[in-house]
Formats: sequence, structure tokens, C-alpha cells
Amino acid sequence: MKKAPTILITGAGGFTGQHACMNFIKKGWRTVAAVRTKQHFSLNCCSVECDLTNFEAVRQMIQSVDPQYILHLAGVNSVPQSWDTPLTTMQNNVLGTLNLLEATREHAPKCNILIVGSGLEKTSQPKEPPLHPYGISKTLQRMLSESWHVLFGQHVVIAKPSNLIGPGPSNGVVSLFAKRIANEEQKNKSVELKVNNLRSQREFLDARDAVKAYELLLLKGQPGLTYEIGSGHSVSIQEIINIFQQMTSVKIKVIDQGIKENGVAKMDTANMEKIGWTPKIAFSDSLKDILHYHRSLH
Amino acid sequence: MKKAPTILITGAGGFTGQHACMNFIKKGWRTVAAVRTKQHFSLNCCSVECDLTNFEAVRQMIQSVDPQYILHLAGVNSVPQSWDTPLTTMQNNVLGTLNLLEATREHAPKCNILIVGSGLEKTSQPKEPPLHPYGISKTLQRMLSESWHVLFGQHVVIAKPSNLIGPGPSNGVVSLFAKRIANEEQKNKSVELKVNNLRSQREFLDARDAVKAYELLLLKGQPGLTYEIGSGHSVSIQEIINIFQQMTSVKIKVIDQGIKENGVAKMDTANMEKIGWTPKIAFSDSLKDILHYHRSLH
Repeated sequence: MKKAPTILITGAGGFTGQHACMNFIKKGWRTVAAVRTKQHFSLNCCSVECDLTNFEAVRQMIQSVDPQYILHLAGVNSVPQSWDTPLTTMQNNVLGTLNLLEATREHAPKCNILIVGSGLEKTSQPKEPPLHPYGISKTLQRMLSESWHVLFGQHVVIAKPSNLIGPGPSNGVVSLFAKRIANEEQKNKSVELKVNNLRSQREFLDARDAVKAYELLLLKGQPGLTYEIGSGHSVSIQEIINIFQQMTSVKIKVIDQGIKENGVAKMDTANMEKIGWTPKIAFSDSLKDILHYHRSLH
Repeated sequence: MKKAPTILITGAGGFTGQHACMNFIKKGWRTVAAVRTKQHFSLNCCSVECDLTNFEAVRQMIQSVDPQYILHLAGVNSVPQSWDTPLTTMQNNVLGTLNLLEATREHAPKCNILIVGSGLEKTSQPKEPPLHPYGISKTLQRMLSESWHVLFGQHVVIAKPSNLIGPGPSNGVVSLFAKRIANEEQKNKSVELKVNNLRSQREFLDARDAVKAYELLLLKGQPGLTYEIGSGHSVSIQEIINIFQQMTSVKIKVIDQGIKENGVAKMDTANMEKIGWTPKIAFSDSLKDILHYHRSLH
């Protein structure tokens, strides 16, 4: 019998990290969850505490885990937070990735690494100035990852997902809506949702579909390449609210602040389709599962 | 009488750093030299020890020095060293710059900062892969610096000098030749110089001319802009040897290894000329001063 491969997942305590752990545990892989603190991590797999900004800590982790695969999800992934703490954002997203690449080069040089970037980083127009510290942190993370492949031949693939949604502890707008609705259902009232702009279009993808894409990229991704991952279609905030309204008896009222938002480039999923990936989960099913998740917390 | 401005020079113990200190001391500015260790620093100005990769140390330095100007020269600036220690190279060149920008933003937000990049970083073709860890470290340093100007409005100017030469402790090829020649003059013998390629063309600029450019950029540089600094003409290794041969009675023999070298893009000094800078020191005068420096060490 072939030995199960070992995968190290960084940022395993986060929203996507937990979905990733569940996916690889289910597949029977030896799944090691790297978390900042084990305190709130409850999934049934091996976990290690590691501050990725500390090279010596990362080195020891890679040496002891000896992974064949690394899924690097850790980092600051909030635009507002990146404005509040740009230093921490850069340290986590850039230095953390550098430490991981270097420790792996030293102790697990044959390891397949997937670096998860962000659709909020615009690769199509690299000359355009960044919109926020988060954006530049993800640009530098990607360039660093590509360079380590070119310079040292490391097996590094880059994923660029759009907005991920799904059941679990997400801070995204869809999850926040569902949380508010589920809260109000306890009191049988109406709920008032304040939105930046009802007509804002965004592309959403279920995190469980994204994790399937990550799995495929770890196995079949071409080193040095960036793979955009998305559902292929955008929805407006208005449409999200319409779908939620059909799922609840709570009356949803909307306060539209009419704030102009930066248009987000649509993902080009051609590279993903080439390796056989397409999203499976319908948008309305994602919303149903998200609402169900928040109801289950009561 | 107007109070003399305060300038903080990082990497002040290095080859260019020492020339920079001498320049600003001579101008009567309050010159503070930031060095890794004071042990070998002998110039007659205020000096502070600081590990730039440690944010808290940088924060304390900026707070206590309270500079109006920062000339940021510190960092790993050797291509071979960057291959040996890519982690240290990135930490020094990228994280060190980040710490400096952040500490300045916090404690000296009106400070004019000049970040000294490198001609070995190719901005004209940003899509091309890097040739060495040093190259990518300088690319990320530049992008970070540009971003901090765009995102936070910091007064950050970027300089991109070609190969700097001049009297002093340089590890460049010109200085190494002069050192070998000066050594042999003690013994009145011939000297054998091993070169990668006699026909290699490079652009050299005297560090004293570069420092004048930095002074001008601190005073008149446009924030967010990158200024290429060079002499405007290239010379071959053969020409350098010819000039040195005329200055010494030691017979110079050359072993040409015929190694093909990457052509270095010529600097575009148009932006520098616009603010009134042109190099003043003739190439042969630089060589004379370099040889004189090495003779004086005996």
C-alpha cells in the first residue's frame, strides 16, 4: 500500500484553512495544520504552532514535519486591517512566505508548494499603483514566489482566488449578512443591512470548490505559473440579498450608502480548466449552507 | 542663522556611505551615521548602531535622531553574497527598508527619504525573471518604496545608480585591480589579473559624483519617481587595464577567462539632468584616486 502523502497547511485555523484541512483529512492524507495558536483549533488532525515571521521557528517546523506538499494560506487577508497595520501585513505576507520558501529549500527541497495569493492583486496591470497595503503585500508575495522558482528551481505554484465564501468563520460580506439574519431569526424581527453599494458586482467562489482547485494545483500545477481561480460570473449585492430574502422569514431592509467601489477584475480561469477544474457548488447552495452554519451557532 | 538640517545616513560604514558622510559633514549638515557596528567607523560625526531588520531598533533610532533627510544606503549589495545568503539579502534589503519607511511614517512623517536601489535591477522589463536574489531584492525594495509614497504620501525618492567606483573600501572590480597593483608595487614585480571577460562593457560612476546626485535628489527629487544615475558611457575591462598600465611601472598581465556576461542596461540620466546634475569627475581621475588610495594603505 502506498504511503499517504504529508501536507502542511499554513493558516489552517482560518476560514479557508479549516475547509482545506477537512478536505485532505477526508482524502486520507497525513494532514498537519500550522496555526498561530492551538487554543481554538479543534479539527481532528496533527497541529503545530508556528510564528511564520520567525525563520528559526519555520525551519524547525519544516524539519520536523518533512512535508511533500505545502498549502500556504497564512497571512493577513483583510484590506481594512492592512491599512491599520501595514508593517504586520507585510511581515506576515512577504516575510512569512520568504521564511517558508527558504526553510523548505533547505529541508524539503522536493516539496510541492502552493502559495495562495489574491484576486485583489492586479497582475494584468503591474504598472498600476497599489490600492492598499494588502494589494502590494500580495504582489510582493507573488513576485518573491515566482523568483524562488526561477532562481532556485523550487516547485512553487501560485493560486489567485476570487472572494471565497462558504460555511465557517468568514469575515466576508456574505457571511456577515447571514450572521445578522440568523441573529434576527431568534427574535423574529426585521434586519437592517448597511451596504456600500447595492449594485457592486463581485465574483464569489465557494471555499470548498477553491480547496479542490488547490488540491489539483498541488498535484498538477506548473511551477512558476499563476492560476486564477473563480466562479466565472459576478453577482451584485442586491442579488445576494434577494436570495437570502427567499430563505428567511425575517424582513431584510437595506441601507445603500452608494459608495463607489473599485471594480475588481474578473478571474481568467483558463489555466484551471486546462488541468480539469470547474466549480461545482451553485451560488445559492453556498448561501444556503452559510445561513445554515450561522443558524447552527445559536 | 538657519539651523543646519539633520540627515541620517544608513549603511554609513560602507564604501558609498563614507563618501556620503564626508559630503554632508563638509556641507555643515548635522550628519548622523547609522552603522551596524561602531567598531570600525572612524569618521568625525555622530554615529548610531542599528540593526535595520529589527523594527523596534529602527523606531528608537528615528525617534531619537528626528531626521529631516534620510539617505538609505544600507543593505546587501553583492550579487555573489545574495546567492550564498538569499534570506539575509531579502531581510536586509526589503524588510530593512520597510522598517525604515514605517518608523519614519510614525515618528518623522515629513522626512525626505532617498532609497538607493541598483542599476542591476531591470525596471524597463519588469516581466523578465530576476537574474539573482540581489536583483529581486532590489526590485521588491523599489516597489515597496513607491507604494509607501502612493499609499501613505511619504516623501520617498528612488535612486538607481550604476557601478560606483572611487577611493575607499570598495569590493568592485576596479578597486580590486588597483589593490593588486599597489600590492605588487611594493615588490616591484609584475601582476597577473584574472578577468571574466576583457571585452565586457560596464558603466562606472565615481561615488563622489553619485553622492552629489543623492544630495540633489534629497532636495529636489520628485516623490515616487525613480532616478537613474550614471556616467552616460561604458568602458571595457581592457580599457581600465590600459589606463592603470599607464599609471604604474608594474607589468600587468591579464588572464581572460572569456566568460560571457549579462549585458547591463545603460542608465537613462534624463531625469537627473532635468534637476541640474551631471557627473564631474573624469574616469581616469577616478582610477588615479583609487590607485592612490590603495598605495596609501601601504
